[in-house]
Amino acid sequence: MAENGLHFDRAGNPRMVDVTGKALTARTASARGEILLGPAAMEALGAPAKGPVEATAVIAGIQAAKRTWELVPLCHPLPLDGVDVSFHEKEGALECTCTVRGRAGTGYEMEALTGVSVALLTVYDMLKAVDRGMVIRDIRLISKTGGKSGDWSRPR
Amino acid sequence: MAENGLHFDRAGNPRMVDVTGKALTARTASARGEILLGPAAMEALGAPAKGPVEATAVIAGIQAAKRTWELVPLCHPLPLDGVDVSFHEKEGALECTCTVRGRAGTGYEMEALTGVSVALLTVYDMLKAVDRGMVIRDIRLISKTGGKSGDWSRPR
Amino acid sequence: MAENGLHFDRAGNPRMVDVTGKALTARTASARGEILLGPAAMEALGAPAKGPVEATAVIAGIQAAKRTWELVPLCHPLPLDGVDVSFHEKEGALECTCTVRGRAGTGYEMEALTGVSVALLTVYDMLKAVDRGMVIRDIRLISKTGGKSGDWSRPR
Amino acid sequence: MAENGLHFDRAGNPRMVDVTGKALTARTASARGEILLGPAAMEALGAPAKGPVEATAVIAGIQAAKRTWELVPLCHPLPLDGVDVSFHEKEGALECTCTVRGRAGTGYEMEALTGVSVALLTVYDMLKAVDRGMVIRDIRLISKTGGKSGDWSRPR
Amino acid sequence: MAENGLHFDRAGNPRMVDVTGKALTARTASARGEILLGPAAMEALGAPAKGPVEATAVIAGIQAAKRTWELVPLCHPLPLDGVDVSFHEKEGALECTCTVRGRAGTGYEMEALTGVSVALLTVYDMLKAVDRGMVIRDIRLISKTGGKSGDWSRPR
Amino acid sequence: MAENGLHFDRAGNPRMVDVTGKALTARTASARGEILLGPAAMEALGAPAKGPVEATAVIAGIQAAKRTWELVPLCHPLPLDGVDVSFHEKEGALECTCTVRGRAGTGYEMEALTGVSVALLTVYDMLKAVDRGMVIRDIRLISKTGGKSGDWSRPR
Repeated sequence: MAENGLHFDRAGNPRMVDVTGKALTARTASARGEILLGPAAMEALGAPAKGPVEATAVIAGIQAAKRTWELVPLCHPLPLDGVDVSFHEKEGALECTCTVRGRAGTGYEMEALTGVSVALLTVYDMLKAVDRGMVIRDIRLISKTGGKSGDWSRPR
Repeated sequence: MAENGLHFDRAGNPRMVDVTGKALTARTASARGEILLGPAAMEALGAPAKGPVEATAVIAGIQAAKRTWELVPLCHPLPLDGVDVSFHEKEGALECTCTVRGRAGTGYEMEALTGVSVALLTVYDMLKAVDRGMVIRDIRLISKTGGKSGDWSRPR
Repeated sequence: MAENGLHFDRAGNPRMVDVTGKALTARTASARGEILLGPAAMEALGAPAKGPVEATAVIAGIQAAKRTWELVPLCHPLPLDGVDVSFHEKEGALECTCTVRGRAGTGYEMEALTGVSVALLTVYDMLKAVDRGMVIRDIRLISKTGGKSGDWSRPR
Repeated sequence: MAENGLHFDRAGNPRMVDVTGKALTARTASARGEILLGPAAMEALGAPAKGPVEATAVIAGIQAAKRTWELVPLCHPLPLDGVDVSFHEKEGALECTCTVRGRAGTGYEMEALTGVSVALLTVYDMLKAVDRGMVIRDIRLISKTGGKSGDWSRPR
Repeated sequence: MAENGLHFDRAGNPRMVDVTGKALTARTASARGEILLGPAAMEALGAPAKGPVEATAVIAGIQAAKRTWELVPLCHPLPLDGVDVSFHEKEGALECTCTVRGRAGTGYEMEALTGVSVALLTVYDMLKAVDRGMVIRDIRLISKTGGKSGDWSRPR
Repeated sequence: MAENGLHFDRAGNPRMVDVTGKALTARTASARGEILLGPAAMEALGAPAKGPVEATAVIAGIQAAKRTWELVPLCHPLPLDGVDVSFHEKEGALECTCTVRGRAGTGYEMEALTGVSVALLTVYDMLKAVDRGMVIRDIRLISKTGGKSGDWSRPR
C-alpha cells in the first residue's frame, strides 16, 4: 500500500512517505472550519473582544501551520512562502479559513488543516470562561493546487 | 471583563489569566471529536492500517496535549499526571476521546481539546492519500472535574 | 564560585544551578526595555497598525516567557501563574514591560527579560519594512519579589 | 499597506508577508548589541568564567537564530547556511555580533537580531548571581546583503 | 582547523560550519544501534507489546530526526525527503536502523544517528517498568552517500 | 500489564502511565555512556578543541534533559531541580555522566539517559569532520533514588 502514499507499509509499520526525486514546485492548500458560539460567547466576542480574540487566533494559526511537522508525526518539514488565517462571522458561529503557499515536493494540506484547528482552539480558549459548550466543527480541505495529483476543489 | 477569566482586558489587549493564589488541586478534562471517513479511507483503515493509524494518532494526541501551552498562546504550562487518547470506530467515522489529568491552579480543558484535534489531524494525514475529503467535526468538551467552578458534564 | 549561584563551576564548566531543597515560594519579576522608532515606523504604528503590532508583540512576549528554559540554556523550566506584557508609547519610542509571576524554587528574572526581548523583536519585525534602523535598548530588570535574596528594585 | 511588506493588512489584521514567486537568493544579515557589566560581573567574567559564559552564549545565540520563526510569530522558517556569534570585550561591557547567511526568498535580519538578543540574555543569566543590574542595549541591524532591496549598512 | 569542517575555530570557540555556496544535492545517511534486553523485557516485548513498543519508537525516531537541529546545537536545519526507522529482533537485543534522505548542502549523518538514539531511548522507556538494566549500545554510522566527500560505508 | 507501569495496555495500545495520586517526592537518576574516538578525533579533542567540544556537549545534554518529554512520546513533563553533565577522558574514549534531580510523581531515568545520549551525539557532531567511525556505546542507568520502588544501583 506504500505505493499509494499512505503513511504505513504493507507490514503495518508507520512510515514517512519518501519524496526523493519529487521536484520542488509551487503548491497551495486551503482549509476551513468553524466554532459554534453560544449567546454568551457571541456577546463576549463583541467589543472589546473581537480584536484580541481574532488577532490572537490568527497568530496562533499561523504559528501552528509553521509547526505542523512537529505535531503530525509523519509530515515533512516544508518551507513556507505564506500563511493566511482569516475569520468570517456567521450567525452563531465564527468561521476560519487558512491558506498556505510554498514550494516543496509534497503538499500543504496538513499545514492548512493544522492552522485552522489551532486557530479555532485558540478562539475556544479566549472565550471558554463564558461558554464551555462551544463546538469546533467541519474542519476540511477546501482546495489545493500543484503537485503530481494536480488541482482539487471540494465538491459542493 | 478580566474578572471573568477571559483572555483579554477591558482595553482589548490579549492577556494570560493570572492564577496566582489558586491552589494546585486535582483536575480532569475529557474532550471528544470525530473524523468522517469515506469508503476508501474506511477500507484503508482496515488491516493492516488500523494498527499504525491509531497508534500514530494516539501518540500524536498525547504529545500535543503535553505541548498545548506552546500552541495556544495564552495557556499556562501545566504539569500532567496522565493523558489517555483512545479511538472508537463508528459507522463511517472514527471517534477520538482524550482525557487529561493533573494537579494545577487551572483546568485541563485545552489540553484535552488539543489532544483530540491533533490525533484527528494525524488520522487525516495517515489516510489522505486515499481520501482528501475527510471532515473533522464536533470537537467538544465532554466533562471536567475539579477547580473552583466544580464539575461539569456536557448536557445531552 | 558555584556557591554564588553562577552558572559555571570552579573548573570553568557550564552548569545548571542546583535548586534541590529550595521551597517553592511565590515570586515575581518585572523587566522593561524599549525600541526607538524613526518617523516612518511611528507613522506606521498609527492606525491601522497599532492594534496588530502591539497585539502580536504581546502574544510573542507571553509565549517567549513560557519558553525561556528552551532559549537560555541553563534556566530551569518553571511553572508560571501569569505573564503580563504591555506597551507604553513614548516620544519616538515604544516601551515594553513584562511581569511574570509563579511559585518556584528559583526566580523569574530571565522569563521577564526574555518576554521583553522577544516582544520588542516582534515590533521590529512588524515594522521593519518601513524602517531598518530601529534600535532595541535598555532591556533591564525593574524589580523582583520573593526568594531567599528577597525583594529588589532597580535604584533610580 | 500590505504592499509595503508590513506584517498587517489594511484592515489591521496581522499577516505573514507572502514571498511566493521570490527567487531563493543568497543573503546575509549582521546585528549587534551589548550588555553593560558592573564591576562584580566584570570580575566574574574573568577566569574561569570567560570560557563558559561566552561559549554558552555563543551556542544559545546560534540555536535561537535557528528558532527565530518559532519566536517571532510572522517570520518565515528559513534555511540557514551559517550562523556566527562572537563577543568583543569593551570597557564595562561585552559586545555581541551575530551574522546569518542563507539562500531564501526573504532576508535574515530577524535571525541576526534574535541571535544577538538571546546570546546577551544568556550572558545575563550566567552572571546574574553577582549583578542583577546589568543592562542589554543597542541591539540593532548593522548590515544586510542580497534581496530585492539590495545591500544596506547602518549609517555611522 | 576550521578548514576541516570542525565545529570550533582556531581560538577554541564553537561555531557552525558555513555551507554557503555548497550546492543542494541528494544525500542519504544510515545509522544503527541496539538495546540489550533482559529476559523480562524480552518477554514484555512479546504480545501485546511488540506492536506498541515498536510503533511508538518508530514514530519517536522519525520525529527526532526532524528535530536534530534543535537538539545538536551546531547542526543546520535541513529539509528532509524521507526518514525510515525499522527494528530487527536479535538474540537478547532489539536492533534499530534509521535512514534519512534529502537534498541539502551538508549531510544527514546527525539526523540518522539522532533518529536511532531517540528510537532506542523510547524502547527503554516503554519497557523500563520491567527492566531498568537495559543498555543502549553501538550507535554508529553505517553508510552515507552524496556530498563532496562522496560515498562511505563502515568497514567490516 | 498496565498495572506494571508499562507504556501500553492489555489491548496493545500505547498509553502514558497515570501518576495521579503519586506524591511529588525528591528523586535523582544518573546515567552514563561513552563515545569511542579514533586517533584523529582524539587529536582534535586536544587543544583547542577540548574546551568547545565539551562545553557544547554539556549544554546540549542539559537542554535535552529538559526536553525529554518532547522527545520520548510517553514521558511526563517533569519539573527539574538540577541537571549535571560531565565528561571523563579515558583511553580512546570520552565518557559522559548525566545526573538529574527533581521533585515529581515519577522518576528521572529518561531525563538522565536522554542527557547522556544527546551530549554524546554532540561530541560526534563536533568531531565528525575528522572521524566518521566514532561509536556511541553503553548508555545505561547507573543509579536512581526516591520513588515507591526506592533506590537502585547498577550491579557491578
